[in-house]
Amino acid sequence: MKSSCLQENLNKAVSIVSRIVSTRGTLEILSHILLATDNGRLNLSATNLEIGINYKIGAKVEKEGSLTIPARLFSELISQLPEGKLDLEIKDETLMTKTGHYESQIKGLSAEDFPLIPKIKEKKLATINSSELKEAINLVSFASAPDESRPVLAGIYFKIIKGKIILVATDSYRLAEKVIKNKDVNLEKDAIIPARSLMELARILEDPEENVNIYLDDTQVMFETNDFEFTSRLVEGKFPDYKQIIPSDYETRATLLKSEFTKIIKVVSLFSRESAGSITINIKQKGEVEAISSGSQYGESNAFCEARVEGKDVEIVFNSKYILDVLNNISDGDINLSVSGKLNPGVITKDSDKDYIYVIMPLRA
Amino acid sequence: MKSSCLQENLNKAVSIVSRIVSTRGTLEILSHILLATDNGRLNLSATNLEIGINYKIGAKVEKEGSLTIPARLFSELISQLPEGKLDLEIKDETLMTKTGHYESQIKGLSAEDFPLIPKIKEKKLATINSSELKEAINLVSFASAPDESRPVLAGIYFKIIKGKIILVATDSYRLAEKVIKNKDVNLEKDAIIPARSLMELARILEDPEENVNIYLDDTQVMFETNDFEFTSRLVEGKFPDYKQIIPSDYETRATLLKSEFTKIIKVVSLFSRESAGSITINIKQKGEVEAISSGSQYGESNAFCEARVEGKDVEIVFNSKYILDVLNNISDGDINLSVSGKLNPGVITKDSDKDYIYVIMPLRA
Repeated sequence: MKSSCLQENLNKAVSIVSRIVSTRGTLEILSHILLATDNGRLNLSATNLEIGINYKIGAKVEKEGSLTIPARLFSELISQLPEGKLDLEIKDETLMTKTGHYESQIKGLSAEDFPLIPKIKEKKLATINSSELKEAINLVSFASAPDESRPVLAGIYFKIIKGKIILVATDSYRLAEKVIKNKDVNLEKDAIIPARSLMELARILEDPEENVNIYLDDTQVMFETNDFEFTSRLVEGKFPDYKQIIPSDYETRATLLKSEFTKIIKVVSLFSRESAGSITINIKQKGEVEAISSGSQYGESNAFCEARVEGKDVEIVFNSKYILDVLNNISDGDINLSVSGKLNPGVITKDSDKDYIYVIMPLRA
Repeated sequence: MKSSCLQENLNKAVSIVSRIVSTRGTLEILSHILLATDNGRLNLSATNLEIGINYKIGAKVEKEGSLTIPARLFSELISQLPEGKLDLEIKDETLMTKTGHYESQIKGLSAEDFPLIPKIKEKKLATINSSELKEAINLVSFASAPDESRPVLAGIYFKIIKGKIILVATDSYRLAEKVIKNKDVNLEKDAIIPARSLMELARILEDPEENVNIYLDDTQVMFETNDFEFTSRLVEGKFPDYKQIIPSDYETRATLLKSEFTKIIKVVSLFSRESAGSITINIKQKGEVEAISSGSQYGESNAFCEARVEGKDVEIVFNSKYILDVLNNISDGDINLSVSGKLNPGVITKDSDKDYIYVIMPLRA
């Protein structure tokens, strides 16, 4: 292989692709990136056997070829090289890089031994704006279970029905649902995608005006843009019938500034560490939302902010982490906190986004 | 105690003082900050038994008093509170804070149990500009030994002679010396101060126009500004007679841009991890400095930059970490690399700072 490209393009591609590489694998080749010429471009591939990525950059190709290279050394090297034209050449199992006053040789492994990233044969399911997809992932993924002990809950439910793409995540203590309206969608399909995979995808999606094509088969999903194909395995199993836990009504609703609510929860939760983050929320008809820490050996704290309140006074106990998680991810402005007594789930919504809902189970006081 | 102050002043003081607090102590009170009224100001104190600090802020004091408070909770709380006036009140062993919509109570421990930070009775030794002191600490401290197995080398030699304050650090593989000229100094004194203490002091020194008064006795040193007193224990022992290892002459000198030299060393050192960072430096009469990695299972690398060279060609092996350490700390512009054959120490200096010298022992090729 003999080729040249711009350092800045290769650096971007390597930094994205090398994130997918296994860091604690037993198979050496999984810590490598596959570098290959591909129809006048350079293709970089990596896989950790759950996610696979192909990322393409413009290049001048003089001679075709491919090799796998240790991801960490390669990404560190490329990031340190100066901007501008970079010559790449593969001889035997060594990649030579040359630019200006810098010459390096990295020993690789044969491209033949690199695991294939499987292709999806189904036809395209939907096309979605990358910034809408990124936002939806960020609005739900934090509500998924962090560990793999219940794989279904460590996934994001991805459902396509006429005119809509719906993303849902729940760890059984709280639930987030985001609907993306999409006129072109007709098929009805669903799948559970590992939250880790979608969070990784959200990090890569950056061009707000880009289209993302979605492909799905029984075991895999692929997100495709002009620059990359991102493939993830699916989670087997059945997602909980979540619709039933979303309250359809409320007895008390407080409307308050997200920034103010965040501040009082942050202060009061400092005193709730010993009680697993539990704090009491008082919604008061007179126009206040108050947060009170549970008793602690270190002390106690209470704070309030102004709110527009409909309905009767209520006192309810939540895990402050679950409140802060959603506040840290939704946009600024007014939010609604809706509650029906101390035993039923609370709901956080935004008037400015009717397609998003966040449900939190209360704790027993 | 009853007092009020500005959140922004208290927050700055707490964030500085809480850095000194022991994080893994056995004595609970060492994880606390002492808060006390002091002549119409508030004084915050912390100590880890090696360093002690008193930091004072302006306050309105209605009633005197003192208490120790858990440093972590207190600093997190104060940092989350809104800017502006903050009321503080101590009742029994509880500190109450109140500002706007926020009220908290932190349980503390009696101030009587807090370890005294010893006073120095000697008279003032020197007064030095804070930015000069900070720069000098940063120019030498990285050359000290990182662990305490040889306490003398984990310290910075601090020597005062007529007209000069000299700071020196060495881990026996490299050495850094910085001289601060100071007309007012007359006494001759020296001490070894833990490098960790001086690095902590450098972080706190921020106002470039501030005066720092220095006090020294047989076991302690104190740095005093308008805002704080920073006390550190001294290291017992004798600092090595370092003057003899500073070469007085050179056979080859290369003058080159720090930024260019840094880049080539960074790239080449990526390939030298298995050989403990060793890289070969070739200084060439024709006007080049070349860096070459030692052989590695992952590959090899070489790079060069242009230089003005006096004297004959030389090839010498250094630990790249020791070169990068000094390059990361000295200012931009031209540097001199002076060498006398492959077996003698190399020297890095700057024409723009005749009062600084960095010496590196070569490795055997």
